[in-house]
Amino acid sequence: MSVIKPSLAKGTRDFTPVEMVKRNFIYDTIKTVFKKYGYAEIQTPSMENLKTLTGKYGDEGDKLIFKILNSGPLKHQDTRRILQEDYNFRKIDNSEDYTISTDDKITEDEVFDILAKHVNESIKDSLTEKALRYDLTVPFARYVVMHQHEITLPFKRFQVQPVWRADRPQKGRYREFYQCDVDVVGSESLLNEAEFILIYNEALTKLGLKDFSIKINNRKILSGIAEIIGKPDLIIDMTVAIDKLDKIGLDGVSKELLERGFTEDDLEKLRPVILLEGTNEEKIASLKQVLANSETGLKGVAEIEQVFDYVESLISYSLPLTAKLELDITLARGLNYYTGCIFEVKTNEVAMGSIGGGGRYDDLTGMFGLKDLTGVGVSFGADRIYDVLEELNLFPASAEVGTKVLISNFDTEAEKYALPILQQFRSAGIAAELYPSSAKLKKQMAYADAKNIPYVVLIGGDEIASGELTLKDMKSGEQKKLAVLGIMDLLK
Amino acid sequence: MSVIKPSLAKGTRDFTPVEMVKRNFIYDTIKTVFKKYGYAEIQTPSMENLKTLTGKYGDEGDKLIFKILNSGPLKHQDTRRILQEDYNFRKIDNSEDYTISTDDKITEDEVFDILAKHVNESIKDSLTEKALRYDLTVPFARYVVMHQHEITLPFKRFQVQPVWRADRPQKGRYREFYQCDVDVVGSESLLNEAEFILIYNEALTKLGLKDFSIKINNRKILSGIAEIIGKPDLIIDMTVAIDKLDKIGLDGVSKELLERGFTEDDLEKLRPVILLEGTNEEKIASLKQVLANSETGLKGVAEIEQVFDYVESLISYSLPLTAKLELDITLARGLNYYTGCIFEVKTNEVAMGSIGGGGRYDDLTGMFGLKDLTGVGVSFGADRIYDVLEELNLFPASAEVGTKVLISNFDTEAEKYALPILQQFRSAGIAAELYPSSAKLKKQMAYADAKNIPYVVLIGGDEIASGELTLKDMKSGEQKKLAVLGIMDLLK
Repeated sequence: MSVIKPSLAKGTRDFTPVEMVKRNFIYDTIKTVFKKYGYAEIQTPSMENLKTLTGKYGDEGDKLIFKILNSGPLKHQDTRRILQEDYNFRKIDNSEDYTISTDDKITEDEVFDILAKHVNESIKDSLTEKALRYDLTVPFARYVVMHQHEITLPFKRFQVQPVWRADRPQKGRYREFYQCDVDVVGSESLLNEAEFILIYNEALTKLGLKDFSIKINNRKILSGIAEIIGKPDLIIDMTVAIDKLDKIGLDGVSKELLERGFTEDDLEKLRPVILLEGTNEEKIASLKQVLANSETGLKGVAEIEQVFDYVESLISYSLPLTAKLELDITLARGLNYYTGCIFEVKTNEVAMGSIGGGGRYDDLTGMFGLKDLTGVGVSFGADRIYDVLEELNLFPASAEVGTKVLISNFDTEAEKYALPILQQFRSAGIAAELYPSSAKLKKQMAYADAKNIPYVVLIGGDEIASGELTLKDMKSGEQKKLAVLGIMDLLK
Repeated sequence: MSVIKPSLAKGTRDFTPVEMVKRNFIYDTIKTVFKKYGYAEIQTPSMENLKTLTGKYGDEGDKLIFKILNSGPLKHQDTRRILQEDYNFRKIDNSEDYTISTDDKITEDEVFDILAKHVNESIKDSLTEKALRYDLTVPFARYVVMHQHEITLPFKRFQVQPVWRADRPQKGRYREFYQCDVDVVGSESLLNEAEFILIYNEALTKLGLKDFSIKINNRKILSGIAEIIGKPDLIIDMTVAIDKLDKIGLDGVSKELLERGFTEDDLEKLRPVILLEGTNEEKIASLKQVLANSETGLKGVAEIEQVFDYVESLISYSLPLTAKLELDITLARGLNYYTGCIFEVKTNEVAMGSIGGGGRYDDLTGMFGLKDLTGVGVSFGADRIYDVLEELNLFPASAEVGTKVLISNFDTEAEKYALPILQQFRSAGIAAELYPSSAKLKKQMAYADAKNIPYVVLIGGDEIASGELTLKDMKSGEQKKLAVLGIMDLLK
């Protein structure tokens, strides 16, 4: 076995003990809220059949799917087919040689290019039939269809698992990262939408965020606007342009709309909608006027109103709504996919993209042959939330402590004395360690420091004689003498 | 997007809500014990550079590594190299054709075989440089080496993550499964070995197992035995044969030993060791006599004695030792790897292979250039433990409940009345759902049944008028009228 210098695969990360405790704090907080709202956890395999995934994420997405090599050797007939069909491989008459020929007269470099393409497409395809999941949504759709006879609708599930994307790694973008998705399928009720707002509100508040916005829009409002302008076919172009208002301002949006097939007249009608301001109530009132002639548009507005009503009833007796809940008709995220309400969550305390989002989709499982199953769901961007909490210093101190107490180890006698005490601590549920060998005090203290262990129990001759042990508070440096039970009271 | 029939990749599984709750019960129980003993969680990426993994698991293991296709297109020069070097691809003089030639005169089928081999080895190799992790041990070794300057020794870590193996799937054997590993590196103390026995004992007891054995052996005892017989080089052959005592009996073992180079004289000396019986103390006494002339052998016995002493001191004040702790010199698991104590855990209540095992290794990180770092660790076979608990019906009823209470939904008025109550439940930490639309009672009850929800709150006109809600216990069928606070007291 030759020695190699160890390295991480590009775009992947190790998580240290301190990072894991913080990550678990995020996952646990979010999961606890999901469960309180009646959502149950499922998991799907990391690898899916390639045909389950391809064609679901657009051409760009498909390129980012990590494919897994078939494990067995290539089948003989596969090789033959590849060589014969793709390379035009054949024996040269009256010769011991074999030839690859191309139809047109081309340069040697062009031949290599063509062959490179063939190797890429034909050979690669025949070598792989499995891939790593790209998101949690498509596997969830597959799950629902495959388990449809054992599922009772509405089916409320959450899923917290890693996904993989062959993206170019950069700051904050990894090839392996966690998604936290929560969805319900089989219920049209807008109570679900309202509860997702409450879930965001409660989970992010529990994580310590104080100033964040939950933006809501509705695909039907966008359709209504395109309809009113008389350009229903340009809805995608319209929303792609409007979505950029924050970045390029009204002039930029107007320019882009003109480029995308809208007229100055259209812009005249669009402008008041794009610049819609005021409270949610004011926006709703304006939209009702603007969309008065669009049945679809009014339906969208009514859905938003109903969601706001539900939220109002739900918050009155419980957690206050810390989040700013904001109707934002420039919000267009994943429009091809969503059919009703659309959500996006942003923190206002740190410059960071969205930390969550989602919406309602009316045909999630159609791709697998199960029609007309409506669903709505949102997801939490755990990695971004991690960065936000880190930047705002919001991880609780308790999220950094593993072992609560270290018992020192000076010699065989003290070790022997310490063993039952060690187990007493553990029996009481206190995470405890005995330094595993007698070593210099300095070394043992450095160990406690490095592990962020808040207390050290020192056991020497005096302590054994008196039964009063020395408890050192590693933060304050303070030392006091206490019996074992006193120490346990203090640590619990 | 064409509709495809959804399927799972071979050898992989979905986990339903009920299965996830049970799996989490196992993971959480084990993790809680790990933490109490001072172990901290880390995670490593699912994908590692291929060169980190290959050569670590033997030829058979290497074949079972799932390789990931490089994501970018093949590089032009890679294709050129493959075609030129491996296929001897070249232009035919004075022709527009290109040729592949082989050195020897062989049949066309042989050419295809050779090319198939080339495609398998050369092309496949050039197409992949990443792979899915095969176990948690090699990634842990990589982690320790890469993080050596930030780690304080002894480093106590646990890791619960899936691994992937391209094995032929069969009952109980999957291509994706979880490993639960706990290891400490940088401490020679046998206290660590003793604590692993306590960890097994406590975790498996908490999981509900009542009759299980923790078997222990020591590589040095096996070396000592081989040394005494005068065949130190045959230690592997000896242990492979002895390891089969359970399956093939003494006659079978004797036959195999003769085949593997031992003489009748050797067998004479080996027999009393193989058939070693009695209590651990009696076995230790016999071994001390047998191994009197082997320094290594006596060292192994002394290590076992020290571990037993530690266990004795640790259990006296805490959890009793439920496990049968048994010195078993036929235990040889992973001998090439382990250098000191070796562990294996079996349940005696169900026929099932080992549900855990591990041992001490003196050179885990040598493969990555960090020498002389000793480590010891064990792992829990979570999938097998799941099957054992299922067969013995040991999953607690609480491990099946997600939502605690469902509020019925008969009409808009009742729904409106229910919303603040719903949030009161949740604020009190009670997982609660309101059926999201008004539907027939039967349908709502069927939903509660399917989700194993133990209580349903019925709200009709009478309930709204009186403020006393009807609480139905879904198991007993019993109904009673209670105010909201009364229901909350009962549910908490």
